[in-house]
Amino acid sequence: MDTPKFRRSQRIAAMTSLLSNYPGRLFSLTAFSQQLDTPKSVLSEDLAIVKETVETLQTGELQSVAGAKGGIRFIPKITHKRQKEFLEEVARELSQEHRILPGNYLYYSDLISSPAYVQPMAEILAETMNLKDHQYVVTVETKGIPLAYAVARLLDKPLVVVRRESLMTEGSTVSVNYVSGSGGGMQRMVLPRRAMKTGSGVVMVDDFMRGGGTARGMKNLMKEFDAEVTDIGVIMASKSPADKKGGSYTSLLILEKVDEETGKVDLYPNPELFQ
Amino acid sequence: MDTPKFRRSQRIAAMTSLLSNYPGRLFSLTAFSQQLDTPKSVLSEDLAIVKETVETLQTGELQSVAGAKGGIRFIPKITHKRQKEFLEEVARELSQEHRILPGNYLYYSDLISSPAYVQPMAEILAETMNLKDHQYVVTVETKGIPLAYAVARLLDKPLVVVRRESLMTEGSTVSVNYVSGSGGGMQRMVLPRRAMKTGSGVVMVDDFMRGGGTARGMKNLMKEFDAEVTDIGVIMASKSPADKKGGSYTSLLILEKVDEETGKVDLYPNPELFQ
Repeated sequence: MDTPKFRRSQRIAAMTSLLSNYPGRLFSLTAFSQQLDTPKSVLSEDLAIVKETVETLQTGELQSVAGAKGGIRFIPKITHKRQKEFLEEVARELSQEHRILPGNYLYYSDLISSPAYVQPMAEILAETMNLKDHQYVVTVETKGIPLAYAVARLLDKPLVVVRRESLMTEGSTVSVNYVSGSGGGMQRMVLPRRAMKTGSGVVMVDDFMRGGGTARGMKNLMKEFDAEVTDIGVIMASKSPADKKGGSYTSLLILEKVDEETGKVDLYPNPELFQ
Repeated sequence: MDTPKFRRSQRIAAMTSLLSNYPGRLFSLTAFSQQLDTPKSVLSEDLAIVKETVETLQTGELQSVAGAKGGIRFIPKITHKRQKEFLEEVARELSQEHRILPGNYLYYSDLISSPAYVQPMAEILAETMNLKDHQYVVTVETKGIPLAYAVARLLDKPLVVVRRESLMTEGSTVSVNYVSGSGGGMQRMVLPRRAMKTGSGVVMVDDFMRGGGTARGMKNLMKEFDAEVTDIGVIMASKSPADKKGGSYTSLLILEKVDEETGKVDLYPNPELFQ
């Protein structure tokens, strides 16, 4: 065996950097072996060190997938303790009086577009989602797109953005009407025919859920593509109504009440996440 | 000095994983030192190895920032050679006849929502943008949001999404009307007052530029926030008109022509990127 071109510490830096930059993606040992000019057996030992380290520090998971299409993938993760601390921080930030808008709405667009918040939120949500059973991450424009994209990136799946109206630049479309879970008004969802392969499993990511009408609308839209919604993840769900129209979902935060009069916001991490 | 808790290869795996997972963010050596229970001097040597490796393999850049607020940050990068190969692949993918829509439009929503394409596109665009002079990345809903978010993440800045209409959930807003660069029709852009601090520098990211009307509209909207657009980056710009209303910009691809009749698309990587 020739002397490897790179030292162990260098090989580890190289592989960790690539694996982290494309989380969820399967890298073959053969590709690493060629790029680093190092036998696969040596790289396997290197990867065992990476695996042990990220698992000891609880910063992520290194998964090996066997077989011809197999390889190694990295999925960043944070511990339940840090998840809880982070969501408590988010809840504190969002509970500030200046965020209350007329009509007991809460301003949070800034927070859900900021990578510093979106990345950890996506890591927590992605952990609740089954990696095997889906081919797409879907969302409805506009607010949930950054988070949905971040989840799609962690799962290494394409994102599909459902729109409110059809565009000339998207060809033939499928649309469904649905009853908004909160206001009870009719709304519309549109998706180009060519946006998805039929027969897929999808996970839905959105910013907020009140009555679950959007989730139910999405399920109906997906039926038109012979697709099934296997998981739903949102940043925030209102505590009432407890019975959401869209079925089961995971929410990072529970919003109990926004009170313009008193300037109080009752918002907290979803306790079910930490049971 | 006590024996460090982790071996060199483990420390390198740990720091590389953290740095890559939050690109553009400054990590202090002190924080690493505490987390890994290792003296700063030792970690400096470890980081020199990481720096040398990513630079040798040309997968990214490890930057040191001096001073009290200083630290180390990682910015993933791809070589010019691989940038060109990647953009040629994107151009080939987008030039397929089945992507041509009635009216000589091109369907590309799928590609610009897929992390496998968005991440390298963001890396190329982020490289053209000055890291110092801006506080936000801005885009106009909807199509450009995944890319804009990916750029924001690489630069570790918040993303600001300008909308087409104002919402009850966003409080008081500022809006401007502008003339669409292509069709010549009037359009509207809206941003909540609280979405941005005044006096900021911003970079704009969007999917497509034809006449540059949206870019000019954005510049006018930013003036209302006493903000300045310092860079503009888009995925695709049409070759004509050569004189765009919005001033200078960087485009990854140049779209010369879409011809429904012949089924031909004339689209190629922007040669100016590789001069």
